[in-house]
Amino acid sequence: MQRDDLTRMTKIEVVIDGEHAPQVKEVFAAAGARGFTGVSGVSGLGHDGYHQGGLLFNERNALELLITVVDEEHADTVIAGLRPLLDAEEGVMFVSDTFVSRPEYFR
Amino acid sequence: MQRDDLTRMTKIEVVIDGEHAPQVKEVFAAAGARGFTGVSGVSGLGHDGYHQGGLLFNERNALELLITVVDEEHADTVIAGLRPLLDAEEGVMFVSDTFVSRPEYFR
Amino acid sequence: MQRDDLTRMTKIEVVIDGEHAPQVKEVFAAAGARGFTGVSGVSGLGHDGYHQGGLLFNERNALELLITVVDEEHADTVIAGLRPLLDAEEGVMFVSDTFVSRPEYFR
Repeated sequence: MQRDDLTRMTKIEVVIDGEHAPQVKEVFAAAGARGFTGVSGVSGLGHDGYHQGGLLFNERNALELLITVVDEEHADTVIAGLRPLLDAEEGVMFVSDTFVSRPEYFR
Repeated sequence: MQRDDLTRMTKIEVVIDGEHAPQVKEVFAAAGARGFTGVSGVSGLGHDGYHQGGLLFNERNALELLITVVDEEHADTVIAGLRPLLDAEEGVMFVSDTFVSRPEYFR
Repeated sequence: MQRDDLTRMTKIEVVIDGEHAPQVKEVFAAAGARGFTGVSGVSGLGHDGYHQGGLLFNERNALELLITVVDEEHADTVIAGLRPLLDAEEGVMFVSDTFVSRPEYFR
């Protein structure tokens, strides 16, 4: 693929209890993200769910997946901003590379 | 991880108003994609949503996330085909690497 | 982005008929994954859907997207465990790099 005209950005995904989704969005906004995508009604198991004696034990169904895409500079700020929330609450964060065609949309 | 038996492909994700989802699927199909995954009822903020005075102002709830996975050759065609639609409508596109075990499924 | 304090992991995504989602979760658990994220009510076209004469022909709406994040060692086990299921049933698997801040959560 010719990615010459695409710009590398950082995608940050958070899966967290839906009640904390507004806080995640606030972190995104405060860190300078220009937008987000949210998928609600997501199910999941916490990080030790599988170890509590049954596959579906502790499975939760009111999680939300929140995605933002930012440039490298803002990524550090988003990640730092999410840490206290993810330390306090059940939640996971995934950080990955992605490429976009209109980087100015995300700055 | 031993990725010797996995093949690198290109994942293209589009978040767009649900009313334009059929057009995205048509672009995928016309470009030679073999399938797609769609998540509807997605929420999101446009690229300048956060700048319009409030976190939830302008938040939309009828977006759709559409994902296709193609080889490098087809990726260029999909991306080129999506540009006019994304120029005309609110919508974002993310392009990233992914690996699959059965590349023939996606060609 | 300073990824010095992030650890590279492997994200494995499966899109499959919802009726087979429990089997995917069992593979995840048996392979040592510590959790997963599931998105149900996902639509999609199988790998030859577009070739059956119409864009929406064969489109299905009861698919599930299942995501787990594991370290490299466990990734091989998850992928090997999924193969028989994906050989027998319609379904696709995407494997990609992702970075996390708390790798111990996923081991």
